[in-house]
Amino acid sequence: MRPSGRQLNQMRKVSFERNFSKHAEGSCLVKFGDTHVLCTASLEEKTPPWLRNSGKGWVTAEYGMLPRATGDRMKREAAAGKQGGRTQEIQRLIGRSLRAVIDLEALGEKQITIDCDVIQADGGTRTASITGGWIALYDCLKWMEARSMTKVDKVLKDHVAAISCGIFAGQPVIDLDYIEDSAAETDANFVMTGSGGIVEVQGTAEGKPFSQEEFLKLLALAQDGTQELVAMQKQAIA
Amino acid sequence: MRPSGRQLNQMRKVSFERNFSKHAEGSCLVKFGDTHVLCTASLEEKTPPWLRNSGKGWVTAEYGMLPRATGDRMKREAAAGKQGGRTQEIQRLIGRSLRAVIDLEALGEKQITIDCDVIQADGGTRTASITGGWIALYDCLKWMEARSMTKVDKVLKDHVAAISCGIFAGQPVIDLDYIEDSAAETDANFVMTGSGGIVEVQGTAEGKPFSQEEFLKLLALAQDGTQELVAMQKQAIA
Amino acid sequence: MRPSGRQLNQMRKVSFERNFSKHAEGSCLVKFGDTHVLCTASLEEKTPPWLRNSGKGWVTAEYGMLPRATGDRMKREAAAGKQGGRTQEIQRLIGRSLRAVIDLEALGEKQITIDCDVIQADGGTRTASITGGWIALYDCLKWMEARSMTKVDKVLKDHVAAISCGIFAGQPVIDLDYIEDSAAETDANFVMTGSGGIVEVQGTAEGKPFSQEEFLKLLALAQDGTQELVAMQKQAIA
Amino acid sequence: MRPSGRQLNQMRKVSFERNFSKHAEGSCLVKFGDTHVLCTASLEEKTPPWLRNSGKGWVTAEYGMLPRATGDRMKREAAAGKQGGRTQEIQRLIGRSLRAVIDLEALGEKQITIDCDVIQADGGTRTASITGGWIALYDCLKWMEARSMTKVDKVLKDHVAAISCGIFAGQPVIDLDYIEDSAAETDANFVMTGSGGIVEVQGTAEGKPFSQEEFLKLLALAQDGTQELVAMQKQAIA
Amino acid sequence: MRPSGRQLNQMRKVSFERNFSKHAEGSCLVKFGDTHVLCTASLEEKTPPWLRNSGKGWVTAEYGMLPRATGDRMKREAAAGKQGGRTQEIQRLIGRSLRAVIDLEALGEKQITIDCDVIQADGGTRTASITGGWIALYDCLKWMEARSMTKVDKVLKDHVAAISCGIFAGQPVIDLDYIEDSAAETDANFVMTGSGGIVEVQGTAEGKPFSQEEFLKLLALAQDGTQELVAMQKQAIA
Amino acid sequence: MRPSGRQLNQMRKVSFERNFSKHAEGSCLVKFGDTHVLCTASLEEKTPPWLRNSGKGWVTAEYGMLPRATGDRMKREAAAGKQGGRTQEIQRLIGRSLRAVIDLEALGEKQITIDCDVIQADGGTRTASITGGWIALYDCLKWMEARSMTKVDKVLKDHVAAISCGIFAGQPVIDLDYIEDSAAETDANFVMTGSGGIVEVQGTAEGKPFSQEEFLKLLALAQDGTQELVAMQKQAIA
Repeated sequence: MRPSGRQLNQMRKVSFERNFSKHAEGSCLVKFGDTHVLCTASLEEKTPPWLRNSGKGWVTAEYGMLPRATGDRMKREAAAGKQGGRTQEIQRLIGRSLRAVIDLEALGEKQITIDCDVIQADGGTRTASITGGWIALYDCLKWMEARSMTKVDKVLKDHVAAISCGIFAGQPVIDLDYIEDSAAETDANFVMTGSGGIVEVQGTAEGKPFSQEEFLKLLALAQDGTQELVAMQKQAIA
Repeated sequence: MRPSGRQLNQMRKVSFERNFSKHAEGSCLVKFGDTHVLCTASLEEKTPPWLRNSGKGWVTAEYGMLPRATGDRMKREAAAGKQGGRTQEIQRLIGRSLRAVIDLEALGEKQITIDCDVIQADGGTRTASITGGWIALYDCLKWMEARSMTKVDKVLKDHVAAISCGIFAGQPVIDLDYIEDSAAETDANFVMTGSGGIVEVQGTAEGKPFSQEEFLKLLALAQDGTQELVAMQKQAIA
Repeated sequence: MRPSGRQLNQMRKVSFERNFSKHAEGSCLVKFGDTHVLCTASLEEKTPPWLRNSGKGWVTAEYGMLPRATGDRMKREAAAGKQGGRTQEIQRLIGRSLRAVIDLEALGEKQITIDCDVIQADGGTRTASITGGWIALYDCLKWMEARSMTKVDKVLKDHVAAISCGIFAGQPVIDLDYIEDSAAETDANFVMTGSGGIVEVQGTAEGKPFSQEEFLKLLALAQDGTQELVAMQKQAIA
Repeated sequence: MRPSGRQLNQMRKVSFERNFSKHAEGSCLVKFGDTHVLCTASLEEKTPPWLRNSGKGWVTAEYGMLPRATGDRMKREAAAGKQGGRTQEIQRLIGRSLRAVIDLEALGEKQITIDCDVIQADGGTRTASITGGWIALYDCLKWMEARSMTKVDKVLKDHVAAISCGIFAGQPVIDLDYIEDSAAETDANFVMTGSGGIVEVQGTAEGKPFSQEEFLKLLALAQDGTQELVAMQKQAIA
Repeated sequence: MRPSGRQLNQMRKVSFERNFSKHAEGSCLVKFGDTHVLCTASLEEKTPPWLRNSGKGWVTAEYGMLPRATGDRMKREAAAGKQGGRTQEIQRLIGRSLRAVIDLEALGEKQITIDCDVIQADGGTRTASITGGWIALYDCLKWMEARSMTKVDKVLKDHVAAISCGIFAGQPVIDLDYIEDSAAETDANFVMTGSGGIVEVQGTAEGKPFSQEEFLKLLALAQDGTQELVAMQKQAIA
Repeated sequence: MRPSGRQLNQMRKVSFERNFSKHAEGSCLVKFGDTHVLCTASLEEKTPPWLRNSGKGWVTAEYGMLPRATGDRMKREAAAGKQGGRTQEIQRLIGRSLRAVIDLEALGEKQITIDCDVIQADGGTRTASITGGWIALYDCLKWMEARSMTKVDKVLKDHVAAISCGIFAGQPVIDLDYIEDSAAETDANFVMTGSGGIVEVQGTAEGKPFSQEEFLKLLALAQDGTQELVAMQKQAIA
């Protein structure tokens, strides 16, 4: 039995609140249970230096946690004077995941920055960020389409969503909350597209190494889970 | 006429959403119109080094803005590697203001950190932070009282609230939003207690210098405004 | 009685030593009693990036303290790797205060940096910096006038001077030295122009909140004090 | 055909030069073709702060590249003033991978730091670092055993080795060099133990998403490759 | 002929103003012509961590330049966020030079920090710092002696003074000012004790390499110059 | 007797391994006994900003130590977030020394960066870096000559080599290893050209001051030693 009483293959309640921010070109407050992440998309009319005059645009992501998003207060990274290794790892992952479904040439010489700020954390902040970040990105492209700057369909190739799976108490489970995450033997994150392709797979043995069989069970859970998330994204933007 | 259609002495709609955060000992999402600030209070069982073995506690504040809380995206301070001068000025002000109504000896060797994170900005983020921060601080002390760690009444001496006033289009107005703030000739922030004492006054001529008469009009507006805010705080914690 | 034996409304001995620095376009060693600040004005033939091609110039300030300007040696900010919050707050105040009497359009696309370095501190370093900084700025404009780069009268609209006032031992006093500053119940800084306008007001309750009546007494002291300082500035540049 | 003329399942020539460093408790210059990494193990008689008095030890890793290890000179991270996101991601991976085969309780309150410094880079620096880092770690434990500080067999539970696989020109290949890495459609890193367990899996779609079938082909290649590397490790320490 | 009209072996006018600072245990404003350096000595009742419980004390130095000490304004190191290489090189030299005449065991577990801050620069700031720093150090030890904390004669073994020499326009000259320094073919700094021993020699060919003969001429100039400086130190403390 | 059994005027075994790096335009692994430094030369087709449009090029150096190059592991400077004072001092020395034999006008608007990374340290890393850096620089110019970008003879004016000498156990010795360096009373580094000119002299009294006679003995040792090193450089490039 899972601490939350959920079934092995049952995700937490997921919701998307679009247009959460008054200023951003696209924004979404995504909730995976008690994990709440505010995703905003900010459009700039210029690319990063290394793409200048290439005709191509860029999508990048930044990630942060409010100091008391967690059970114990964490030192504010701005006060510490640098972003930690975990932060950088996560924001690189979010950026790669979203770029996987964007046609950067069709975007043209523009940059969209997806900021994912964790308001409250209960496990799975990176997967919520990717899944909600896609909504913010979509709404930013819609905003651009409304101003005849682009066509959403030309730039956005597919949905992308992410979910964590892990082996908890000897069982493969989906969408681990903080309690499960802390005790899981194996922890994996999967990023997948609407058409079922894999964009990113990251699996880590926390305790003892895992087998190929175990990994395939997690992958199967993730395939169902991400399809469910994509269906919810479709509903949210309908 | 004010851009928002408000009367000269009319504040924006103010609301307090207590217990916004699952983890913090006290928390409050405070809204002054479109300015939304999440205030959390985090209790630690130790004082800063310079108070060790003094028998006294400490209340401090940190302030941050999400990168897209504003009309244009601002560089994330954690990525820039340091907190800017404006951030430091504001968080020092919030800390001083809240300490003005706390009996640090009665608190004992503990530290409470009030994090004020601006989710959306439309002028007046520092005054909203102080006013909402008081609620988070109150709830943290309540949390401690419930665990027999202290008595709220022994530690918390009074309410504290803050409001901005300014001269806009030649008229003294209260609670400036971003449009007014950008165009104001004079901009002042007032921090006052429930019993009407002044904790902090900061007035700045943005354009031409102002006179004592003008300043007294702003002060009068602020006195009414802060009393109104204190009344709302009382209602919120009732 | 004040520790120094001064009257309640008596400032410390103030002096300005112009042309203290061989290299700077304008410079002044200002002394408010034992508080000694070296102010230099440095002219650059370019504006900061955000004013490029605007036709406007800029006046900015930086502030620093020698490590042993104070009773106990303070860590050197260059060695610590960053300027503290207090330093940033003060240098922002000095810059705003001086810009209040400058016509930036008349200055044209140039930047003048006022460096205020505290050689010895005994309270009131920020007010000495503003008051002495005005002399350095004046001399820099004179230097420019001598080279037909501008006319002082077109760029410099007025004098500006600053003084601290506070409530010490229950009495309103002017120009607090370190001993008074450490024990004051209320501490306020006032920046005013030669024609009596208020540029900046900052009042802080150190102990218990203060009343409007108390604040007005401090303001009255400051009005007299700044007019006296302006008279001394006039004598110094005569 | 691969640019190097290798078979799809053919790794580059791998070698381990033990005791490369005069000072370190364990060291190994590992070469995967033209990728050369110096791995040193440094023993300290204390754990990091969060493990103090826990009876447990720690194994951690740091990673760096000499500025001209690469085709174009990269800015030295020490001069830039911080370690980049890629560096932090890699050193966290190396540390996790090595800890997976260490019994931290058996190690006792000691810390072993594995430094992996890339002398020359041609793709696969992180997999070479893990594989060579294991040798340095083994030799450090041997050094300790020789001084009766521990028994290797009590602390070291298994071998660990890592290899990259990817889809290059439509084909699954093992141990990508820089040319292949730059052009690969999918890039994956696998960390496995001597007994065949998976410690870490990281797969990234560089171009289009990949399928489960493709991923399983990469996994199969990696299983053979890591077993081959483990055999070479055994020979090296024989 | 030298630009200043000085003889080849003629130093600039040197003066020491003792007790320049109200707060420091020892202080001296040293002038070598237009080069003015404020040296303060600050006593702390504890050694640096690596000397704890060793019975030995430490003397260290820090060096800084006011931003407009030079012809062109230099960026403030505190604002830049780090001390430059030149600053670190100079402060290490000052510290080593002063420690050469101190008996650290006799000093006991205390630390004296000599801050050398350049108020105005015209060449030779490091040699003025060492020469004036010795006075500040002496006065700090006198201060301690007056409080029965130590005996000056037990701790201070000798005088130390420093001078620059160089080859300018083909001639060996002493005590180069900025104009000479910028054009010198060879530039050397010598630190010597009252008894004529050499503490530090640093010679650098700016243009073409120099010969042993040339170097010995500079050394001879320096020997006379430092003896003259030591005589002036003796007069200053008489 | 020296700990290594060497004669007073006997250097350690010196070797140069050219073309150590696959990527760099010039490279050399230089060994002075157990001190091993990898020197690489990297060519960039642009000068630093302050030389733009001057027609002149630049040669600069950077220096680093692998964390476990030394007996005890040192903190990685990239992790510490800055280069220490010693590192900066050494890399400035290497750069000055190599520029002394380069005609920067003949080089033209290009920059060559010599990276000196200490793989293993046993005293004398800076002198090995200069001596081996010259080889890397030579090979870089050869590489350019082969591509008709320049002529080696036009740009490179002479050899340059460096050696340390010191007074150890009362005797003048050459090429101190770590044990000698730690115990030396006087430590000096000499940089000289192939034609016998002195480029840089740095002598430091570690214990008691040294005399002119002692210094001249060290200089004589260094003159022989650097000529020997130049002869080895000639052989290496033959």
